[in-house]
Amino acid sequence: MKKMESAPVTTAAMAEELERYFDRLWPICRSITGPGYRESLDIISEIMPTERLRFPSGSKVFDWTVPPEWEARDAFIIDPSGRKHAAFKENNLHLVGYSVPFKGRLTLDELRPHLHSAPELPEAIPYRTSYYEKQWGFCLSHAELKNLPEGDYEVFIDTALQPGQVEVGEAVLPGETDAEVLFSTYLCHPSMANNELSGPLVMTFLYRLLAAIPRRRYTYRFAVMPETIGAVCYLSARGQHFKEHLSAGYQVTCVGDAGDFTFKLSRRGDTLADRAARIVLRDLGPHKIVPFDPYVGSDERQYCSPGFNFPVGSLMRTGYLGYEGYHTSLDNKNFISFEALCGSIEAYRKIAAAIEANYNWTNTVQYCEPQLGSRGLYTSIGGQTAVEDRGRAMMWMLNLADGSRDLLTVAEQSLQPIETLASVAEDLAEAGLLRRRS
Amino acid sequence: MKKMESAPVTTAAMAEELERYFDRLWPICRSITGPGYRESLDIISEIMPTERLRFPSGSKVFDWTVPPEWEARDAFIIDPSGRKHAAFKENNLHLVGYSVPFKGRLTLDELRPHLHSAPELPEAIPYRTSYYEKQWGFCLSHAELKNLPEGDYEVFIDTALQPGQVEVGEAVLPGETDAEVLFSTYLCHPSMANNELSGPLVMTFLYRLLAAIPRRRYTYRFAVMPETIGAVCYLSARGQHFKEHLSAGYQVTCVGDAGDFTFKLSRRGDTLADRAARIVLRDLGPHKIVPFDPYVGSDERQYCSPGFNFPVGSLMRTGYLGYEGYHTSLDNKNFISFEALCGSIEAYRKIAAAIEANYNWTNTVQYCEPQLGSRGLYTSIGGQTAVEDRGRAMMWMLNLADGSRDLLTVAEQSLQPIETLASVAEDLAEAGLLRRRS
Amino acid sequence: MKKMESAPVTTAAMAEELERYFDRLWPICRSITGPGYRESLDIISEIMPTERLRFPSGSKVFDWTVPPEWEARDAFIIDPSGRKHAAFKENNLHLVGYSVPFKGRLTLDELRPHLHSAPELPEAIPYRTSYYEKQWGFCLSHAELKNLPEGDYEVFIDTALQPGQVEVGEAVLPGETDAEVLFSTYLCHPSMANNELSGPLVMTFLYRLLAAIPRRRYTYRFAVMPETIGAVCYLSARGQHFKEHLSAGYQVTCVGDAGDFTFKLSRRGDTLADRAARIVLRDLGPHKIVPFDPYVGSDERQYCSPGFNFPVGSLMRTGYLGYEGYHTSLDNKNFISFEALCGSIEAYRKIAAAIEANYNWTNTVQYCEPQLGSRGLYTSIGGQTAVEDRGRAMMWMLNLADGSRDLLTVAEQSLQPIETLASVAEDLAEAGLLRRRS
Repeated sequence: MKKMESAPVTTAAMAEELERYFDRLWPICRSITGPGYRESLDIISEIMPTERLRFPSGSKVFDWTVPPEWEARDAFIIDPSGRKHAAFKENNLHLVGYSVPFKGRLTLDELRPHLHSAPELPEAIPYRTSYYEKQWGFCLSHAELKNLPEGDYEVFIDTALQPGQVEVGEAVLPGETDAEVLFSTYLCHPSMANNELSGPLVMTFLYRLLAAIPRRRYTYRFAVMPETIGAVCYLSARGQHFKEHLSAGYQVTCVGDAGDFTFKLSRRGDTLADRAARIVLRDLGPHKIVPFDPYVGSDERQYCSPGFNFPVGSLMRTGYLGYEGYHTSLDNKNFISFEALCGSIEAYRKIAAAIEANYNWTNTVQYCEPQLGSRGLYTSIGGQTAVEDRGRAMMWMLNLADGSRDLLTVAEQSLQPIETLASVAEDLAEAGLLRRRS
Repeated sequence: MKKMESAPVTTAAMAEELERYFDRLWPICRSITGPGYRESLDIISEIMPTERLRFPSGSKVFDWTVPPEWEARDAFIIDPSGRKHAAFKENNLHLVGYSVPFKGRLTLDELRPHLHSAPELPEAIPYRTSYYEKQWGFCLSHAELKNLPEGDYEVFIDTALQPGQVEVGEAVLPGETDAEVLFSTYLCHPSMANNELSGPLVMTFLYRLLAAIPRRRYTYRFAVMPETIGAVCYLSARGQHFKEHLSAGYQVTCVGDAGDFTFKLSRRGDTLADRAARIVLRDLGPHKIVPFDPYVGSDERQYCSPGFNFPVGSLMRTGYLGYEGYHTSLDNKNFISFEALCGSIEAYRKIAAAIEANYNWTNTVQYCEPQLGSRGLYTSIGGQTAVEDRGRAMMWMLNLADGSRDLLTVAEQSLQPIETLASVAEDLAEAGLLRRRS
Repeated sequence: MKKMESAPVTTAAMAEELERYFDRLWPICRSITGPGYRESLDIISEIMPTERLRFPSGSKVFDWTVPPEWEARDAFIIDPSGRKHAAFKENNLHLVGYSVPFKGRLTLDELRPHLHSAPELPEAIPYRTSYYEKQWGFCLSHAELKNLPEGDYEVFIDTALQPGQVEVGEAVLPGETDAEVLFSTYLCHPSMANNELSGPLVMTFLYRLLAAIPRRRYTYRFAVMPETIGAVCYLSARGQHFKEHLSAGYQVTCVGDAGDFTFKLSRRGDTLADRAARIVLRDLGPHKIVPFDPYVGSDERQYCSPGFNFPVGSLMRTGYLGYEGYHTSLDNKNFISFEALCGSIEAYRKIAAAIEANYNWTNTVQYCEPQLGSRGLYTSIGGQTAVEDRGRAMMWMLNLADGSRDLLTVAEQSLQPIETLASVAEDLAEAGLLRRRS
């Protein structure tokens, strides 16, 4: 546990720096490919230097084909009275992602099938895409849509679809062993705050904290990509490697709101990733554990596809679909909090610390309790009735350390906080009472 | 699932037909043997043609001896004032089943040990039998019993006990395999509605629905018998066959009242019979699951005796002992509902459909999700937030179809309705994305 | 079960005798060694004759060293006004156990670190010891402590620490087999009632009841010792024997108050000791089951140390730490009840009876139910709706007795009382329907 302690960073300073990066990233029109994605990845790489993996348009990755690159320059519609609507330059959510170029004059009735709104949230602009079917469209608030006058509309969409690539950014922090812990996030949504920018920001700041640790037991790998197609591409490159080396992984997403933590279990549900997250959340306070779901989810859907079945879960705050403004313009800076981002970084750091500390300890005195008092490890006055947290954790460590349990199991069975257990384990090891299984 | 769809039958038409059969069966004085039983079995065989298995009186079946055949022609008592009581011809419950013939004059005190009532239900005539000890007796309402005047009584019982047989009716619907699903019910109670006639009626109408299916994967076997001794006899004939072929079985009883379904688990508790019933009931709505019980029960007690330990449970409505008028004259036509009988038939049909659809599927794209959009299996507009039931079931099928799970397990783990899963599995198979394990 | 029936003892007579022993033991100043301990052990041995195991001061037992023997003759402090406080002869709790001899004059400020009180219970004298660090101290009520005047105090402590021994008293009741059941308790606390005297009293009276049984299947071993160091010593002598022979064990402590029973599970949690206690408590009524805890506990901490991991739990009433006056002068005769002690003895007796009756039975009629009516084991009138407890237990025995379950498992699965099951098993065995697995 000690070696996981990193240089102290005040939350306030971290929150400010997070906000500066957020403000730079916010206006960029990202998609699964294209200049907006690349610009965002470059900014993110200032925090966490990345190597790039590139997958050219048209290449076959598992059951998928890498799409062409998309660039959006401008788009809007003009109503019969000459008023502009759904201007891309005002809010990049107005244009359906991957809309093909189009210029023309349509009646409102002809236009309607191309217009998307969210009737249940009449002020919100929804987020829509059409990556794999060639079409175009606009998203606008239901309030605006309802008031569009009848008549002829000018439609202008200046976009381009051309051969390019899907790009994945990756960083590795080597450890003493080649067993790996993966953090993965996506960077393909245009201007949305929680369901996009919170993920890359939390993950890259976590990178920084883990990079500051002098010695790491595990190798840590961090990956930024477009959702779904990026994960499919990434796994085509790293799947085999992960089969051999991946001990635990986390999909980092929706970690910016002030809600309680939610942990979505991996498909197996009882992997190191699941167990570390469960214990850390248990020790942190109120939270939710939800089962794996291959329908509602992010890239853990790919990591946990049956052929891979990797130990990858996802620690979120409220989580997708759990908050009202999900996939709309309401998921903006007002919805998130930079203190919450800091808390998410800290929770992920604690998970990494729990994984690092997860040794299998053996008590060197297997028969009866060791005499702790004579070693100065225990109060010398007997008969006291107050519970002493470190003493309690010590007795649990000694009793359960029979070589058959790792530290997470001790934490699970004893109900003692894993940080306390890890800390007393170090003390007991120094006193010669515990030995790590080699 | 498709091949399990049978010709549409309106519930109203079915309810009417059920009622016509009920009215014919109701007045007959059934017992575990004898003319009443045989007459009832003949009527039932109009719906479901039966072969007969016969076990002669005196033969040894496992630990039991087949009893003589019993015929009841008339019985009553006459009080000192000349009034008739407990007349068999008014209600066949008045005579204790298997009463030996008797004619004589007794004081009320001598008569009392032969009179049975249900003090907790003072208006009800209880149902009593004495199959294996030679005695005679009458059942009457507690209200009537209390008011019997002192004095001498004439007792008249015209019955006969003579060599005959226990008879079991059986029907088989062959399937593509010789793996069998058994439905079993009993036909030995005199005029009672839920605890007797509901079982044979539901089972035989279920036979009709399953007979209408063009291709069946499983072979379906249906058996009607007197309770306990009939099952002992039947198992002496079919026990060995079932050891080799029985995949699932159900004791059909108490399925006529309007209460929620109750499923009594088999002794093993996790057999195909249990799992199919659990999932169908989960999808249907509120219900109860109760553990196996060798004391309170019907013929599942024999099917689940330790030497057989067959996968046989029992889907009931409120179930025996759960309703007030059980084993009394209050269990009559007013207590049951023919719509409830139809619902019970439908629930059993869904269980058979779940068993038929219970294949072990394997996803042909094991690494990452297949690209459903390009196959027209999924919406082409991304980013939508509404849950789409078929899409959700599809993603679950694809994720869990790794060759290690049958469809019931997929339904258990995914919480998706088994009918939806079975249906999307067929679609995915047509698209080449799922393959049945041969 | 029959052979476990012992001579009837009225609870009133037993309660009176318990009280007489209690009154003799109460005033003695016990500690983990010394004359008070020995005197107490001699009294206890009037009820249960004991052999003594002795471990000399200075010897090494596992990780511990046997301490010197301690004798306390007198101790008090005199305040500036000449008033005596914390007089050992008034209440032996006033002197910290194992205080070294001391005579001197101190200011109140110098004296304070040597004074212990319980602020949350201002009228209570707390119980404190210092077995392994050489120091001295006094315990007094917080009310008294607060009112000590400033000034110089005379301190007088007449104690002696000298080579001696730790002593364990042991008794054995041989059985038909060398599989053993252990009862263990401690005798090292000075004048406290529930947390001390209840344990030895219950255990020795239990010894008497079990000694009165003509034939025992198990060998019963009873041990009295000082807590912790006594258990460490005892296990150094008997640990290897227990590894070969111990089937179940119980730490008897805190069994004197009127609260519901609490059973603390063994470290393994599912041993014969745990299962027998769980079933007996389930049948007795409201109770609590708590998991093993290596921190808060008594000598089960040693029996359940990882190297031994013995099947030893602890049946208590409210249990240590669960009641307010624990480890203070409030744990006195008013706090306990001799009827409660009798109830605890009876509960332990029932546990022994359950262990004795825990045979693995096999039904000789494996196919279908045996015909109980013809054997006079079942009511001859069929159709009755009342639940008959023995009949129900009989059907469960017959159904579950397939050779794979012991009686405790039958009790667990069937929810039938173990005493009823044990009794009907004997009847069924007499009727040739059950056979014990040899």
